[in-house]
Amino acid sequence: MFIRLGYDIEFEIPAPVAMVAMLSVHPSRVPDLRAPDEMEIDPAVPLTGYTDVFGNRCTRFVAPQGTLRLSNTTLIEDSGIPDAVSPNAREHPVGELPNDTLIYLLNSRYCEVDRLSNIATELFGATPPGWGRVQAVCDWVNAKVMFGYQHARPFRTALDVFTDRVGVCRDYQHLAIAFCRALNIPARYATGYLGDIGVPLTPPMDFSAWFEVYLDNQWWIFDARNNTPRIGRALIATGRDASDVAITTSFGAANLTRFAVVAEEVDASAATFPPI
Amino acid sequence: MFIRLGYDIEFEIPAPVAMVAMLSVHPSRVPDLRAPDEMEIDPAVPLTGYTDVFGNRCTRFVAPQGTLRLSNTTLIEDSGIPDAVSPNAREHPVGELPNDTLIYLLNSRYCEVDRLSNIATELFGATPPGWGRVQAVCDWVNAKVMFGYQHARPFRTALDVFTDRVGVCRDYQHLAIAFCRALNIPARYATGYLGDIGVPLTPPMDFSAWFEVYLDNQWWIFDARNNTPRIGRALIATGRDASDVAITTSFGAANLTRFAVVAEEVDASAATFPPI
Amino acid sequence: MFIRLGYDIEFEIPAPVAMVAMLSVHPSRVPDLRAPDEMEIDPAVPLTGYTDVFGNRCTRFVAPQGTLRLSNTTLIEDSGIPDAVSPNAREHPVGELPNDTLIYLLNSRYCEVDRLSNIATELFGATPPGWGRVQAVCDWVNAKVMFGYQHARPFRTALDVFTDRVGVCRDYQHLAIAFCRALNIPARYATGYLGDIGVPLTPPMDFSAWFEVYLDNQWWIFDARNNTPRIGRALIATGRDASDVAITTSFGAANLTRFAVVAEEVDASAATFPPI
Amino acid sequence: MFIRLGYDIEFEIPAPVAMVAMLSVHPSRVPDLRAPDEMEIDPAVPLTGYTDVFGNRCTRFVAPQGTLRLSNTTLIEDSGIPDAVSPNAREHPVGELPNDTLIYLLNSRYCEVDRLSNIATELFGATPPGWGRVQAVCDWVNAKVMFGYQHARPFRTALDVFTDRVGVCRDYQHLAIAFCRALNIPARYATGYLGDIGVPLTPPMDFSAWFEVYLDNQWWIFDARNNTPRIGRALIATGRDASDVAITTSFGAANLTRFAVVAEEVDASAATFPPI
Repeated sequence: MFIRLGYDIEFEIPAPVAMVAMLSVHPSRVPDLRAPDEMEIDPAVPLTGYTDVFGNRCTRFVAPQGTLRLSNTTLIEDSGIPDAVSPNAREHPVGELPNDTLIYLLNSRYCEVDRLSNIATELFGATPPGWGRVQAVCDWVNAKVMFGYQHARPFRTALDVFTDRVGVCRDYQHLAIAFCRALNIPARYATGYLGDIGVPLTPPMDFSAWFEVYLDNQWWIFDARNNTPRIGRALIATGRDASDVAITTSFGAANLTRFAVVAEEVDASAATFPPI
Repeated sequence: MFIRLGYDIEFEIPAPVAMVAMLSVHPSRVPDLRAPDEMEIDPAVPLTGYTDVFGNRCTRFVAPQGTLRLSNTTLIEDSGIPDAVSPNAREHPVGELPNDTLIYLLNSRYCEVDRLSNIATELFGATPPGWGRVQAVCDWVNAKVMFGYQHARPFRTALDVFTDRVGVCRDYQHLAIAFCRALNIPARYATGYLGDIGVPLTPPMDFSAWFEVYLDNQWWIFDARNNTPRIGRALIATGRDASDVAITTSFGAANLTRFAVVAEEVDASAATFPPI
Repeated sequence: MFIRLGYDIEFEIPAPVAMVAMLSVHPSRVPDLRAPDEMEIDPAVPLTGYTDVFGNRCTRFVAPQGTLRLSNTTLIEDSGIPDAVSPNAREHPVGELPNDTLIYLLNSRYCEVDRLSNIATELFGATPPGWGRVQAVCDWVNAKVMFGYQHARPFRTALDVFTDRVGVCRDYQHLAIAFCRALNIPARYATGYLGDIGVPLTPPMDFSAWFEVYLDNQWWIFDARNNTPRIGRALIATGRDASDVAITTSFGAANLTRFAVVAEEVDASAATFPPI
Repeated sequence: MFIRLGYDIEFEIPAPVAMVAMLSVHPSRVPDLRAPDEMEIDPAVPLTGYTDVFGNRCTRFVAPQGTLRLSNTTLIEDSGIPDAVSPNAREHPVGELPNDTLIYLLNSRYCEVDRLSNIATELFGATPPGWGRVQAVCDWVNAKVMFGYQHARPFRTALDVFTDRVGVCRDYQHLAIAFCRALNIPARYATGYLGDIGVPLTPPMDFSAWFEVYLDNQWWIFDARNNTPRIGRALIATGRDASDVAITTSFGAANLTRFAVVAEEVDASAATFPPI
């Protein structure tokens, strides 16, 4: 299956401002790209790429005053297989976890593991460990939180989600992540493209968030918002929470004026295969 | 100058629990060690060392039920020179900052840069950029926050410090760090030994916290708690905030029953110089 | 000047629920009414009126399952004089304040006087006491907070307004109230009708909030949102904050489906004057 | 049974400051007094008594610079009967509650009913209404929160208690109150004397807090901290939460230097019975 990925984002920039974009497909998916994945920037300014401590591809630049447009279209090949489900995947005792997963047990800006620890134990401590416990977390969050774009709020933390019970996709994942970490299951935030392949939904208007947990020697995808296996996720970045993997971060004023994201299946015959 | 560093920490462990310790001197100071710096653990259990994403030396192990003792004494050579002061150190525009400093501009668990951003601009936006602005941040925090061990509180964030105006050394640094980041100055939390060399203080009863900011192509030490150049800091770890660099993190119950830290100048003639 | 006041509010009630409405003009304005001010309720259910501890007229009832409509139109005579401005009004030392104003110096749900105390002193402590200090508070809040209906949020407190700097009219007043109380100036929240008389605004779509402070032996109107004297306020209720004077409080689910408020000047000749 | 009640409180006052004291026994217990209950103040300054909106006896004065001492000893006759237990006391539907109880269903500074509403329903919604539901609230709070004087913190709210699980007696009551209100059971905070009559405790060092709920046409005493019927409570004040009924409120700096409270049974024969 081939999926066309693209975005078209515009800002009005009142004064020159440094920005970082996470708009490249994640290194783990680069082998699947079937077209170049290079951000176009207008006006053209020098771009610098680098990899952050979480392994994500970042692009930084200084946006000049005026209208700034970031856009791209690329093509990715996808297995067409829904997110894996592995009910017998076991939970590792912390002592067995790989070193590099331990950071995903700790607190982060939007995931107050410390303050949600007792609550997580009360809610999920009696659930048998492993895949089912993570699924129980997702089921709980999915059932208790009411989705609404009007509920988007930049500073909402996992604890706020727990009390307020409203939010957008990032809020669902933050609460689920905090619960998993409180249960000693490494969990990290993921952002990327998620089209409507195989689901009767309206087209996506935004990038999507999900999360990953480490069970049985690997990272697995969970999604407390959709809470059902999906086809065609194209990962951009993972990190501790949304603070680490903002699509764009501007170190000064930058007013978003246009935002369009596309992730749609395309016909294999129509797909072009430029060398990359 | 030679400084003897040491700690003696005991826990009562109700059930086997995985722990991570950051009790090794930071790699940047390893060349200055004049004695081995190996944590002793009693009872003896296998120790695994690794370096985290921030570059700190970590030691992990599974503590068995019962009394656990972590201890060590080592010796470090120190320049005896107080923390550098460089009033002309300039502030970098974000566009010029090295890639690996950018993470220290972002939010973290105890430093809500997003929520303190307007406040930082109001308080320090008119201060000329550079060293003086960071010093102004430290002066403000030092003057406004009242120290008291009885004010120690595990969940206090920079915003809480800003409103409550009480705290211990970590609280001072968290608020100063959040202000610096909000002003687009990379700032990271540091933990280590800080004796009373050259100051008429009572001996330290704890590890100390300070912070580092990136100005004029390098990281510099600031300390909003003491707010005066000090001699003999021995760095252990740096990270986004205290959540990243806890001296010990236990993934389950571990009750602290003894805690002693030493950092004292020793006579060169008395200092032993085993090969390391 | 005559002002027609009215509202038309509908709820869908999933199950019988007790409600309290504060939809009557405040007792202090009853002498100005030129038409009856009786809430119509459909379906007709028994209404009980009472006065709360703050002196407001409340109406309670049990709403049956189904559609509930609360509506009314009344007529009030208004001086047509803008809110009084009295720059020489003096501030009372707390020791001189009337007993019944003291409660308006204390904390309340949305006004964390305790946590905003130091901040208020830093911002306004040097401003000469009296009317000018309250005006300085209003000027600051008005300048710093950005209005937007999309920013309405039920749980936002004064401290949240201080950090987030966005809100609707109630948020402006909460922050101003908390600052005044922290400065030892009694301040209370007010809700009522505020039309667009004399101002080039779009018609009001909601009830409005303002606040009152006690200076120079009386309560005065301030409005940190509009921050300019206005004509035609018709007070409904005063209390510590929005929690005390919700237009409607339902002790169970009640889904708002229609909300219309009118406050418009009418021709004296057209105004009917039924005996009341 | 006769109980001697008394207090001896000293402040250092850096500059003249207005204060309000709630140190008189509550009007409901005045008939039980067997000695005068007049606060002594040294130095002697004019005292003004008044009753607040919650029905409590308050005393206000302006403390001069220097040492301020508030003290008193009085005698109260007590039934000697433990707090009433009435397992069949029924819960009123809100529609049936007396008007003046409704305020005790609302939010207050330290009891965020709004934010704890879903949590309360999840924890106690399935418990049969009435006395048993309130007892279930107390049992939960008593079991989950760890007492410690070192955990006293002035700004801790019910939500903080719910997450942090530590506190002093006021914290227990705040969380229980918020839960009860979220369940539509009127609940108010109470402060007063509570000696160790009938319990093997160390003598009280402080005033105590408990709370009252309205069930079956009357207010009943509950105490989530002690969670067992006690003898000899001498009520001072009730209000929405601790913010309303602080023992002393100072509108400026006042540093507590001495605090002693006594509530002890005395021999009837030794008790003096002056006319009052």
